[in-house]
Amino acid sequence: MMGSPVDVIQSVRLDDENDMLILLDQTLLPNEKRFLELKEIKDIWDAIYFLKVRGAPAIGITAAYGVYLGTKQSEADNYDDLFADFTKVKDYLATSRPTAVNLFWALARMEARFKLEAGKSPEEVKAALKEESELIRDEDEQVCKSIGEYALSLLEPGWGILTHCNAGTIATAKYGTALAPIYLGQEKGYNFKVFADETRPLLQGARLTAWELQEAGVDVTLICDNMASIIMKEGKVQAVLVGCDRVASNGDSANKIGTSGVAILAKHYNIPFYVCAPLSTVDLECKTGDDIHIELRPSSEITSAWYEKPMAPKDVKTYNPAFDVTDHELITGIVTEKGIAYPPFSNSLAEMFKK
Amino acid sequence: MMGSPVDVIQSVRLDDENDMLILLDQTLLPNEKRFLELKEIKDIWDAIYFLKVRGAPAIGITAAYGVYLGTKQSEADNYDDLFADFTKVKDYLATSRPTAVNLFWALARMEARFKLEAGKSPEEVKAALKEESELIRDEDEQVCKSIGEYALSLLEPGWGILTHCNAGTIATAKYGTALAPIYLGQEKGYNFKVFADETRPLLQGARLTAWELQEAGVDVTLICDNMASIIMKEGKVQAVLVGCDRVASNGDSANKIGTSGVAILAKHYNIPFYVCAPLSTVDLECKTGDDIHIELRPSSEITSAWYEKPMAPKDVKTYNPAFDVTDHELITGIVTEKGIAYPPFSNSLAEMFKK
Repeated sequence: MMGSPVDVIQSVRLDDENDMLILLDQTLLPNEKRFLELKEIKDIWDAIYFLKVRGAPAIGITAAYGVYLGTKQSEADNYDDLFADFTKVKDYLATSRPTAVNLFWALARMEARFKLEAGKSPEEVKAALKEESELIRDEDEQVCKSIGEYALSLLEPGWGILTHCNAGTIATAKYGTALAPIYLGQEKGYNFKVFADETRPLLQGARLTAWELQEAGVDVTLICDNMASIIMKEGKVQAVLVGCDRVASNGDSANKIGTSGVAILAKHYNIPFYVCAPLSTVDLECKTGDDIHIELRPSSEITSAWYEKPMAPKDVKTYNPAFDVTDHELITGIVTEKGIAYPPFSNSLAEMFKK
Repeated sequence: MMGSPVDVIQSVRLDDENDMLILLDQTLLPNEKRFLELKEIKDIWDAIYFLKVRGAPAIGITAAYGVYLGTKQSEADNYDDLFADFTKVKDYLATSRPTAVNLFWALARMEARFKLEAGKSPEEVKAALKEESELIRDEDEQVCKSIGEYALSLLEPGWGILTHCNAGTIATAKYGTALAPIYLGQEKGYNFKVFADETRPLLQGARLTAWELQEAGVDVTLICDNMASIIMKEGKVQAVLVGCDRVASNGDSANKIGTSGVAILAKHYNIPFYVCAPLSTVDLECKTGDDIHIELRPSSEITSAWYEKPMAPKDVKTYNPAFDVTDHELITGIVTEKGIAYPPFSNSLAEMFKK
């Protein structure tokens, strides 16, 4: 797997020989690059709970490796006893982040695999669980790589690319989604100039995106969110690439707060705006963005988080939505692992699922 | 002068009886409201140099009061000796912030007044200087009040108003520019709901605008800059009001970084966008925004200012323009103390100077 600029990072990795999970502690970024060596299930639970790992795919992979490692420690000498031990570990890990859909998806998939091996010896089941966890990881890498290849076909060497929040390698098995074409382009010497919005209030762009791109040797420039307009006006940006949390059937896309504003600016300056979305985030049951619930988060993220002293008046009212919805009319294309959907998205997204 | 909600603030004030200048220390905001009592010229110099007072009009007023108080201390018994002492104080204060145009403008105006009083007694000249400094202050209040009245005619009670950066009472004698209609509306019970962009990187919106509006009892909600799009989409904003640093003859307006992005969002959502500009900021010699030089500021404002630890990777490249230019086509109207200029601004702005 060496040879890609993102290999220097590898935020989630199984070290099966030493019975441990090796995890980049994202809470220490960007000031320290520390890999945790986790052997105890309690420590893996902590890593998820305390957000040392973040990004839906990365959490799913961590949970899959975790339930495998926990089951491997079992001394059960038959299938049923091993299943009891597996279930204990699975139920325990499920409590680490009750809102993370991918966590439950990965644990359910590991359980399904366990059941597929019905009646086999503990050694055989453990080998199957190891295989399944590696599959979950490898499939995520393939999905991201495929998104990256399709997205790369839209870009030209030397382009300036603006991104918002973090949809990069540390949130996934490898490559990321919106950053996948950047890394694949880097392998080919495309020399993109990437601009990372810092992404207030939690600064994922400053702390994570700028860090991982710099670590991988990509030319990255950090800006405040409100500087996107001037860099577009100055001709520094030829395309915008963002990830997403959920895409409705008409193409309306929910992503980190501020994304819709970037899309409006891109339209104003005639710059293409692409959403990079694994099909797992496309929800055909969700008709439009109006059906997407927007989470409101605490004031303190705006008024005092990260700061030595509060930088806003005490008890000031705030409005802190975690996401916004980018209207489908502002989106040039939605890049999935099966290809690029273009407007009208109601047709093109549904087609992707038939491929 | 009592009766206005901004009277609770009064950031620059002369206490002639006690020979001192009373100045709100803006560097302590929003965590502490402390008024400095400045008697020594060295302390007034410090206040300007260390940005305890900011905002072009407020700096000019401070300098005018400062040169008056310094001259008042002189024991000269004739006009010429008093002028020598005046000049010493004036030249000294001029070194406190060499890039502040209003500082020099105010000191030059005080010198012109001194010369008008040629041959008079030191007592008479001191009285004239006091009068001139109060005139500078009062004229600023009148300009702001007039801008506020014109702007208020554009607004309706209960409206949501978005503003960017700080163009409020603490930057001026009273009322501010963009915030003037808010305060005048507050006096009339208009119950505006104001949204303040925090305004990265230096957070003037969070530290100053949110503070002064809250202090004056205005309903204010603080948001991150990248939340302007969602609040507009949700119908929370009926008008955008911003200040400006410089307006070109075609209406292109330079203001704090991010302003142009807010204007593009407002246009997208069909929300009127008004620039509040004293005629002193309209430069008919400057043809378009292309002629306005944009200052680039240090990385540290983005990567580490205000924070306990750096929140971006060490040595990451940044781009940190202090201002941007809002294209005249995005501006609904430019509100001056002589009236509201509408497109085409090349005509309407020139007309304002003839009134």
